[in-house]
Amino acid sequence: MRGEVAIVGAGHTVFGDHPDKTYPQLFAEAFWEAVESVDKGIDPKEIKAAFIGTLGSGGSQLGNLSCAITGDLNIVPIPAVRVENACASSGFAFMLGVMGVASGLYDVVLVGGVEKMRDVAGLRGRYWLGVSGDTLWERLAGTTFPGMYALMATKHMEKYGTKPEHLAMVAVKNHYYGADNPKAHFRRRIDVETALRSPIVAAPLRLYDCCPTSDGATAIIICRSDIAKKYTDSPVYVLGLGAATDYIAVYERDDVTTLRATVEASRQAYKVAGVEPKDIDLAEVHDCFTIAEIIAYEDLGFCERGEGWKLIEERQTYIGGRIPVNVSGGLKAKGHPIGATGTSQVYEIFKQLRNEAKERSRQVPEAEIGLTHNVGGSGGTCVVHIFGIRR
Amino acid sequence: MRGEVAIVGAGHTVFGDHPDKTYPQLFAEAFWEAVESVDKGIDPKEIKAAFIGTLGSGGSQLGNLSCAITGDLNIVPIPAVRVENACASSGFAFMLGVMGVASGLYDVVLVGGVEKMRDVAGLRGRYWLGVSGDTLWERLAGTTFPGMYALMATKHMEKYGTKPEHLAMVAVKNHYYGADNPKAHFRRRIDVETALRSPIVAAPLRLYDCCPTSDGATAIIICRSDIAKKYTDSPVYVLGLGAATDYIAVYERDDVTTLRATVEASRQAYKVAGVEPKDIDLAEVHDCFTIAEIIAYEDLGFCERGEGWKLIEERQTYIGGRIPVNVSGGLKAKGHPIGATGTSQVYEIFKQLRNEAKERSRQVPEAEIGLTHNVGGSGGTCVVHIFGIRR
Repeated sequence: MRGEVAIVGAGHTVFGDHPDKTYPQLFAEAFWEAVESVDKGIDPKEIKAAFIGTLGSGGSQLGNLSCAITGDLNIVPIPAVRVENACASSGFAFMLGVMGVASGLYDVVLVGGVEKMRDVAGLRGRYWLGVSGDTLWERLAGTTFPGMYALMATKHMEKYGTKPEHLAMVAVKNHYYGADNPKAHFRRRIDVETALRSPIVAAPLRLYDCCPTSDGATAIIICRSDIAKKYTDSPVYVLGLGAATDYIAVYERDDVTTLRATVEASRQAYKVAGVEPKDIDLAEVHDCFTIAEIIAYEDLGFCERGEGWKLIEERQTYIGGRIPVNVSGGLKAKGHPIGATGTSQVYEIFKQLRNEAKERSRQVPEAEIGLTHNVGGSGGTCVVHIFGIRR
Repeated sequence: MRGEVAIVGAGHTVFGDHPDKTYPQLFAEAFWEAVESVDKGIDPKEIKAAFIGTLGSGGSQLGNLSCAITGDLNIVPIPAVRVENACASSGFAFMLGVMGVASGLYDVVLVGGVEKMRDVAGLRGRYWLGVSGDTLWERLAGTTFPGMYALMATKHMEKYGTKPEHLAMVAVKNHYYGADNPKAHFRRRIDVETALRSPIVAAPLRLYDCCPTSDGATAIIICRSDIAKKYTDSPVYVLGLGAATDYIAVYERDDVTTLRATVEASRQAYKVAGVEPKDIDLAEVHDCFTIAEIIAYEDLGFCERGEGWKLIEERQTYIGGRIPVNVSGGLKAKGHPIGATGTSQVYEIFKQLRNEAKERSRQVPEAEIGLTHNVGGSGGTCVVHIFGIRR
């Protein structure tokens, strides 16, 4: 599996508000950018299958979206599959694309995701996203995603001494980088005081601890590594992948200060790639809430258990630190259009490893190995990919 | 790809009404039957990934269902993916499982599907299923799935001389076999007169031309062919597969008397398997409406274009005829719990090729090669698999 599949193109809409486009139209914008990004050119007819991640379809096409998209792109009759694993939908779509190529079935594959959170804004929208948590025992009892992550934060603070200031520092870092990312939803910097003064959403989480709801789409073109040079001189290779589930209901888990699915998925991914956490040059992690980024530091092995707060306090996850994290702005500042997020992370790593982050403030120097970490719900599912510029 | 993956176990709930079970509980029933069906035994812990097809989740778990299922089955932390391709959801889940094994990622994989159509009965339910057709130009203009297939039937009648009696004959055949299938939703035989006297749903389609809405679940255990004999002396091998999309909106298609996605998917599947339509000993085809079965005869190459009606008139799709079709009862009589249907077809072929249809009236004698044909929406997606008892 290691190094068998390569990325040769990637596209990404601006994340934010797109009231004027349907799901297929929004996805098409990312798709055509991906096609045009292929250095030596690609004919869309060379694409042999598509895997698309989305949670819902917000009013425009609620079911059977995959063929609505191939039809709109005029790439029928290639097979297409819609994948729904909550917020990890397109991370898993990417994994399926890799499987499709590695299995020998398809030489060139389109993967991506799309979501229009603003189609379902307000009370109904919150309800709708909430369906990705456990329904019977948690959601119907009144829990929300901010509430779930607030429980994790409370316990993490009690157990490891993490403070509200550390959560705020994560938000400050991600807004710092997001401000320079032209694809980001929020493009302004904040300071710790602003974050700590913002309204409580679910104690101890405040407004700036929570990612926004965004519209957006992302698309990636992958192929067999042995034909990648036909499309570009600088492909990015998939070195490893891992995926896992956990009990969807948080109350069923032994420890809420860790996401078992992340630990298991990253263990597999490191093993397949033959690398260790210390080898990772940059990572895009699933910071749906600031506490989620701190827990991810620990679960992915970037620091010792319970010391995630030190990593951000010491600015080790800034560029120049031990392991830059979310230099795209992360879900926090770049935005979180559910189905588009997983392949948005892949887009960022693809650009970074090719030294193509146009805004030099965001370019991690000489990065050779990158990692993406995409979580569904409150940790019910997780998928981790590791990428490199050498097979 | 040919012969690399084998089926070693299969489970199937009764299709019909299951008001007392959640989605995970219903799926669990099929899962445990699949585990117990493995002749030499299997420990659920040997399963390394799961791919689950479902259209919606009807009130119990609307998003992130895959981990709700692995949690309920207590097989976390294995990765799991929910697939939604309308009525072809679990046919595509099966394809992803085959990819997962063939790619070398997973040795043993669970695939399946589940749906509770009765959770969304009534006007809201019909709306909900309708979302799998084109929304912007067809559904919002008032079309329904019976309406779409009625258009196809009208044109097929005009172009090829198909008559309402031929549609009725399909229903009679499928009820004939469904009556003997203990897993079927409807277990009574009907005659042509009864079908022709039934109320019009969308002219020329009558009540008995339409499949029911059912609850149900199906589960299949697959593995690398070279380890299949560890689990059973009589594995069934995946010889070929093909999948395709078409324009989701029927009005965009050049010809409504054929499903292009079926033609393309079966062309690929025959090619991979190295067989021709005449080599197929039995088929489970997607008869959501009786006209769909007649069109499938033609699209799958079981007869010449426009001669589907002759095949049923001459009873060539009964056991003893040229190519027995839907001896399970098909969607028409066995029922159509959307997400469960694709792997229900695979279950039937698995049992038939192992000579295990308990009701001898339904056992196709000496069948060695079987085909499944699963369609999403009104032909927007299609997946075809070909199975055999020899690699």
